[in-house]
Amino acid sequence: MRDEISELTTNRLSLYVRFLNELDEKGVRTVSSTVLAGRFGLNAALIRKDLAHFGDLGVRGVGYVVKDLRRELQVILGLDRKLAVAIMGAGNLGLALADYPGFRREGFRIVALFDTLREKVGQESRSGVRIYDIQELRDVAGREGITIAVIAVPAASAQQVVGTVIDAGIKAVLNFSPGALRVPPDVKLKSVDLTVSLESLSFYLASLESGARN
Amino acid sequence: MRDEISELTTNRLSLYVRFLNELDEKGVRTVSSTVLAGRFGLNAALIRKDLAHFGDLGVRGVGYVVKDLRRELQVILGLDRKLAVAIMGAGNLGLALADYPGFRREGFRIVALFDTLREKVGQESRSGVRIYDIQELRDVAGREGITIAVIAVPAASAQQVVGTVIDAGIKAVLNFSPGALRVPPDVKLKSVDLTVSLESLSFYLASLESGARN
Repeated sequence: MRDEISELTTNRLSLYVRFLNELDEKGVRTVSSTVLAGRFGLNAALIRKDLAHFGDLGVRGVGYVVKDLRRELQVILGLDRKLAVAIMGAGNLGLALADYPGFRREGFRIVALFDTLREKVGQESRSGVRIYDIQELRDVAGREGITIAVIAVPAASAQQVVGTVIDAGIKAVLNFSPGALRVPPDVKLKSVDLTVSLESLSFYLASLESGARN
Repeated sequence: MRDEISELTTNRLSLYVRFLNELDEKGVRTVSSTVLAGRFGLNAALIRKDLAHFGDLGVRGVGYVVKDLRRELQVILGLDRKLAVAIMGAGNLGLALADYPGFRREGFRIVALFDTLREKVGQESRSGVRIYDIQELRDVAGREGITIAVIAVPAASAQQVVGTVIDAGIKAVLNFSPGALRVPPDVKLKSVDLTVSLESLSFYLASLESGARN
């Protein structure tokens, strides 16, 4: 059943969890699909369909119990297990990601940075994530139970680093490096393209101007 | 008409432009909606609908002429104008974004970094983006025609920095700082949540394990 759930759906589930966290902090106990829909600019039927994938989570006339729905979604997303994450590359991007507060808040543990530069190895990021030599990846990954690697190295070395990650037995890769990477079929690769967000602002500015012209 | 185009649509248009760049580099002259659909795992009707928003760009029996479609989409997304971007915060994240190759490739100019730390002001990022004192924002923005500001400061100072950005007359803000920011209705704010990508990998790993159990 899980195989049929698209990535767009799991992205929405992530947003629902975030909103449920907010509601719970405010002491809100139940939420309807209509309220969820209003928050995300989606229609309520889509939200009910998203949640129905995972069994009957709602109560007729009440909606969803905030704490229960959040717990269910966290289990579905695998967030109940505090997954251990390695960041490959201790440059500006790698260090920024190691200290990014959102990862920790949502149940990930950033356990190690890896780099090839001798002068960086043994240092720590501001929040205390240690930088290891990339040759230690297999050992550290085994010891810490690392299941996700984040690629934050320059494009020119990204494919080689991904090879090292795969050799260490890591099956999930989040790529911030530009350009396409090759992975075997049993490895899940997700690439983040930061430019898409900037382009939606560009579109907004273009539409402001065309509005002013008309 | 532009007002009716959703952000999900503009995000897809960004991806189409990226793919059309690839096709053009390979010397491919035309592309059908079916090929576009296959590439993105969408259905061809949705793609035709996306593109039909902007007039009749296709040729029956041929599909779309790669160069023409790309040029149209670039104009629609406002990418033909080399928009000037400022990055607020010259910490690890700000410096990483200033040197991110994707922004330049897709038609943005990162013209300045801003920080409050005296020892950073006057320095440059690795790719040569100069760091200014945040008090200079209004002057530099006017001189360079900055229309987009990227927020890459710690959460505690993000709201104050957004205030400075708005006072300088900038109407589009891309926020990497966690937590909600308030902007007036005539300012477009887009927030990037890097955790969502990590959560889709978490879901994948959870489904691997549940597959192994079953």
